[in-house]
Amino acid sequence: MRNDKSTLEEFALDRAFTFFECGPVMLIATRLNGRDNVMTASCHASMGFEPTVGVMLGEWNYSYRALVKTGECVIAAPAVDLMKKTVAIGNCSGSDIDKFKAFHLTPVKAKYVKAPLIGECLKNLECVVEKKIAINGSYLFVLRGVAAWHNPHRKERRVFHANGDGTFTIDGRTIDLKSDMTKWQDCI
Amino acid sequence: MRNDKSTLEEFALDRAFTFFECGPVMLIATRLNGRDNVMTASCHASMGFEPTVGVMLGEWNYSYRALVKTGECVIAAPAVDLMKKTVAIGNCSGSDIDKFKAFHLTPVKAKYVKAPLIGECLKNLECVVEKKIAINGSYLFVLRGVAAWHNPHRKERRVFHANGDGTFTIDGRTIDLKSDMTKWQDCI
Repeated sequence: MRNDKSTLEEFALDRAFTFFECGPVMLIATRLNGRDNVMTASCHASMGFEPTVGVMLGEWNYSYRALVKTGECVIAAPAVDLMKKTVAIGNCSGSDIDKFKAFHLTPVKAKYVKAPLIGECLKNLECVVEKKIAINGSYLFVLRGVAAWHNPHRKERRVFHANGDGTFTIDGRTIDLKSDMTKWQDCI
Repeated sequence: MRNDKSTLEEFALDRAFTFFECGPVMLIATRLNGRDNVMTASCHASMGFEPTVGVMLGEWNYSYRALVKTGECVIAAPAVDLMKKTVAIGNCSGSDIDKFKAFHLTPVKAKYVKAPLIGECLKNLECVVEKKIAINGSYLFVLRGVAAWHNPHRKERRVFHANGDGTFTIDGRTIDLKSDMTKWQDCI
C-alpha cells in the first residue's frame, strides 16, 4: 500500500455529502486479513450531512464479509476514464482474484480506516459502518464518513451513472441554479 | 384529477428499478384529505428489483405526514425541461400553497394508490410504504412499487442530477456496455 497521497488532498468532511447526491457509480474498497478488495456499487443514497451514505449489498458480495467483520470501508467516485474498468470490477469477485492488482488500481493508505483509498479515483470517503439493515433479502449499510479526499489535479471530472440495463450515462452540462435554492442557502 | 392517461403507458413493473438507479432528481406526489401535494427528492436509492426504492425524508417535510398517514405515494422522474420547476417545487412547502396548481402540473388518476401520477413526468411509479427507518434524525422510507408508467411519446428523455451545491448536471451521452455485463445478463 502506498503511503504517498501526492495526488489526493483532504476535502472538507461537511461537504462530502456532495460526493453521492448525483447518484454516480461508486467503488467500495475494503481490507480483510491484510488483503484489499474493491467492488462496484450503484445502489446508494446520500442520507445526511455528517456525511452519511447508505449502500445496498448482498451476502453474495465478497465485500459483505469485510464490511461486517471490519466495520470499515472506503467509498470512492471514479471518473469517466475508469468506466470500462469499473464495470469490469463489478463482473468478477474478490474471492477469485486480487482486483487491485488485476485492474492496476493504487491502494493508498487512509487516515482512519484500514481499507485503502483508491489513488485513481476523483473522490474518496473513509467510512465506518453505523447500521446494517435487512431489506428484502439484501442489506442496507449505513456508512458515516470520517475523512474525505479528492484529486483536484485531474482534468476528467465527469462521473457516470448506471441505468440498470447495461447502459451508462456520462455527465453532460452542469447548470448553476444556486440563486433558485432560496430554502437551502446553508447547503450551497 | 384527470382520468385520461393518454400520454402515459403502463411500464413493466419488474423493469421499473431502472427508473432510479442512475440517481436522478425525483418528484414525490402524495394525497392527504383529498388534497394533492408534491415534493422534490434527490436522496434515494434503488433497493431491489421488486422494485423497491428508499427515499430520505424529514418530519419537517410537509409530505412526511401524508406518507405516514396514507402509506402511499407516487415517485416520478421529471426530464430536463422540468428542471427549473422541480427546483422551485423543492423551495416551497405544501403547507403554504397548492403546488400542483402553482406549478401547472397535471394530477392523473393512478391505478392502485390515491396519490396522483404526474402527467408531465417521464416515468411514474405507484408505491406503498413497506418500512420507515430512523437514520440520524431523518427517516428512510422503503417504498415498494405496485404499478409503473412511462411516457414514450416525449422527445426530451434526459434526466438531471443534484450535485448538492445548487448545481445540477444534465445527462450527456449514453454508453452501451451490455456485452461487458457478463455477470448480470439477467438484468439487461
